[in-house]
Amino acid sequence: MPSESFRYEAVRQSVVDLIESGALGPGDKAPSLRNLAARMRVSLSTASLAYGQLESEGVLEARPKSGFFVRAARAGLPPPSAPDCEAKTPEPLNRAMIIHKVLADMSRQDMVPLGVARTAESLLPLAQLNRILAQVLRDEGEKVGFYGSVQGHEPLRRQIVLRALEAGIECALPETLITSGAMEALYIALRCVVRTGDTVAIASPTYYCFLQLLENLGLRVIEIPSRPGEGVRPADLAQVVDRFRVSACVLTPNFNNPDGTLIPDGAKAEIVSLLARHDIPLIEDDVYGDIHFGPERPKCSKAFDRKGLVLTCASFSKTLAPGYRVGWLLPGRFMDKALEVKATTSVCTATPTQMAIAEYLGAGHYHRHLKRLRPAAKALMLSMHDLVGRHFPPGTRASKPGGGTVMWVELPGRGDGVEFMQRALAKGITAAPGAIFSSQGCFRHFVRLSSCVPQGPELTHAVQTLGAIAQDLLVKGHEDRIPDPWADDPIAMPEVSPKDS
Amino acid sequence: MPSESFRYEAVRQSVVDLIESGALGPGDKAPSLRNLAARMRVSLSTASLAYGQLESEGVLEARPKSGFFVRAARAGLPPPSAPDCEAKTPEPLNRAMIIHKVLADMSRQDMVPLGVARTAESLLPLAQLNRILAQVLRDEGEKVGFYGSVQGHEPLRRQIVLRALEAGIECALPETLITSGAMEALYIALRCVVRTGDTVAIASPTYYCFLQLLENLGLRVIEIPSRPGEGVRPADLAQVVDRFRVSACVLTPNFNNPDGTLIPDGAKAEIVSLLARHDIPLIEDDVYGDIHFGPERPKCSKAFDRKGLVLTCASFSKTLAPGYRVGWLLPGRFMDKALEVKATTSVCTATPTQMAIAEYLGAGHYHRHLKRLRPAAKALMLSMHDLVGRHFPPGTRASKPGGGTVMWVELPGRGDGVEFMQRALAKGITAAPGAIFSSQGCFRHFVRLSSCVPQGPELTHAVQTLGAIAQDLLVKGHEDRIPDPWADDPIAMPEVSPKDS
Repeated sequence: MPSESFRYEAVRQSVVDLIESGALGPGDKAPSLRNLAARMRVSLSTASLAYGQLESEGVLEARPKSGFFVRAARAGLPPPSAPDCEAKTPEPLNRAMIIHKVLADMSRQDMVPLGVARTAESLLPLAQLNRILAQVLRDEGEKVGFYGSVQGHEPLRRQIVLRALEAGIECALPETLITSGAMEALYIALRCVVRTGDTVAIASPTYYCFLQLLENLGLRVIEIPSRPGEGVRPADLAQVVDRFRVSACVLTPNFNNPDGTLIPDGAKAEIVSLLARHDIPLIEDDVYGDIHFGPERPKCSKAFDRKGLVLTCASFSKTLAPGYRVGWLLPGRFMDKALEVKATTSVCTATPTQMAIAEYLGAGHYHRHLKRLRPAAKALMLSMHDLVGRHFPPGTRASKPGGGTVMWVELPGRGDGVEFMQRALAKGITAAPGAIFSSQGCFRHFVRLSSCVPQGPELTHAVQTLGAIAQDLLVKGHEDRIPDPWADDPIAMPEVSPKDS
Repeated sequence: MPSESFRYEAVRQSVVDLIESGALGPGDKAPSLRNLAARMRVSLSTASLAYGQLESEGVLEARPKSGFFVRAARAGLPPPSAPDCEAKTPEPLNRAMIIHKVLADMSRQDMVPLGVARTAESLLPLAQLNRILAQVLRDEGEKVGFYGSVQGHEPLRRQIVLRALEAGIECALPETLITSGAMEALYIALRCVVRTGDTVAIASPTYYCFLQLLENLGLRVIEIPSRPGEGVRPADLAQVVDRFRVSACVLTPNFNNPDGTLIPDGAKAEIVSLLARHDIPLIEDDVYGDIHFGPERPKCSKAFDRKGLVLTCASFSKTLAPGYRVGWLLPGRFMDKALEVKATTSVCTATPTQMAIAEYLGAGHYHRHLKRLRPAAKALMLSMHDLVGRHFPPGTRASKPGGGTVMWVELPGRGDGVEFMQRALAKGITAAPGAIFSSQGCFRHFVRLSSCVPQGPELTHAVQTLGAIAQDLLVKGHEDRIPDPWADDPIAMPEVSPKDS
């Protein structure tokens, strides 16, 4: 990562921090460029670049011969409402088709990529990884092309054991399995613990690819509200497992995709012990756990597992290199089955990329990389929150996650997220409509935006454009709220038979 | 590939050819070393090395001061019997556990690897691929670490379109999907066309990982005999689809794993049209099609497909680099569903290995490589057949496939394949027992041996050891054949309801 962009961002962030902390209010004069440059030991041109950016974002305004002043902005965005669900979909929603569209645009380079939950490529150590991969090719020679073991490259699995400790998990080498990304880990985990027709409890909203997978495997789904600021409540889950025959629970406790909620460690412990009492396996997705913005890495649910019933899925796709397709599964007591499923799905994971990542971790690079990645991702999240707050119409609500790479935006006036996406695409911007994050067609007036996109005039312009679209939808949107069917019972009930049937 | 080992093998093969063609019979004098070396333009020491090898294999014997003579050997191995099935398994067979064991030994470097269907690593262009991958890292830079598209790297898909022409398939770029090896392609293909509880028709025997996958997906299986020398007969398949509600058919028409049978192109056309009349999708695995020993590349079934009902799975794992995990699926009319399943299984295939293979093919290397690989794989197949003929006890039968990398051996006296495997493992040799290649527990007295293992004293010794184990099992084996329940009706019937129920 060029240190120049770091300095620039540090200056920009210092001003944002002053405003966010209340030290600077609307109309106040910002520090002079000269003073700030001296204090932060950057060149005048770097400081000037940062102020120009803040100006284009609408944070500061330049007054001739007077300097820069904080603009009178609206108050920060309020958090989104607790999940609810609109009345049974008036027009059928072709979720599969929308997802197809969202995924098809995933690797397009000609769009402003706000529709994918990926980390800005400039924050990933891709050049360094390539150098290490080239070194591996020289050092390991032909071995790189051989079949690896089904369970994965042992030196990499050794590093996974060490990483797991940071998330509070004590596991041994034989308890690790390398996968082609976290998606394959989740797929294998599901195949370990459920069969067609079983019922799975999930958070609402949940990552659309998970829903698609559950549906494709012929599973029934019970959605449990992921509440702003706390995620899935143990009490809500308890209500579900008491009333229904649930075969597994799938959660992303650390920075749920799309709403970014974090289930507090205490609640995780409660959830694990609740499920253990019912002998229900918990599958957790931890792809965002390493991208926490606070001082402490949040624990994995598996840290509280005493019965081998928690299956943890994760990957390096958000922190290192999505194109390398390296993830892992800690399948607890289900390793035999997991190996069987892995062997009959993709035999083993590609060897070269496994070896390169093992080298990268073994040399201590990962730890150092995360120390830079976290504050950078945090800065982008705050800036994105800020941008949306400035350019979206009043009434917009949004999550402000403490980690991860996405932000969950509730459109004002119940504007339609799918229409929002289509209009955005026409303007060269991708966005993921809320409706695909629920099997019940909830969240129609939400969109998920990537928070981890490089700052600059292009992004600012894109968010301005999206704000105008939201404004437009607001005008034509419904004025009356449809009665909320979840008002009494916030848990979406699928058509499953109660436990005693 | 060192040219020295090629010369050595060419000399060895020329003598084997003379014997196989009948030009040299038992007791005949072999060409003198000096003459042979001059005729084949190799050094005397190379010729002498080849003769030493033939001696250790028991093909020639040296007589002091007289030269080398063809040993009186048994006649060549007869082909295996047509599939039958023993009476319902007296002791239950834990197929999953045996498969687990076979797979666990897949990547062990301390075993003579006769249990895996892989190509000898010395025949793969691994060093060249590594150089190309290193070049890709330099040329493409950070892009190599990005998410690829779900459908796969376009330049690679373009090459797949060209390769498909050689197998008689005309397909367009949008009809190709890159996968993590052929196993993932098969998995995706199945998810496109069947649901839990459906019935699938397969060859008997069939690759054990396919069976395991079918079982794991909750599918029922009807086994259709793969007959020596012809594979699955259209008439046998017709009988099944007339009588049962079959949702899909899974075949490896070109060199079926494990018996190596090739379904003639005419029969393929019949099968495709038969299934099309019933609207039944055909999933074909073509991983061995490029390793044919005859002059013509056998066609894929898809070459005869007019309705988009044939889904072709293949990979570069047998011809280039298994560790790269690059395969593909031509899903016919099921592309939308295939993309959905791919996205929810592994999102996309690793980028670096896709790019390297695209480069390798684009530069024309693949075509040249196959021209060397085919005769080399053929020579190893013939030599393996020969070795087994010499060192296994009389009564042994074996297939002599016209392509691929495995050989199907029927133990004499109905010796037990699982016990054979266990004793072989104890001697440092892997082998795959026949019973795992059938869902009905058939083929208990078969073993599958890799035919594509480097020649030399180690291999010869290993086959001698296996021969001794077979001899040992023969002595303790059953004397009486159990009555064959397939005698009247060679198709294994699962417990499925007939069509009209």
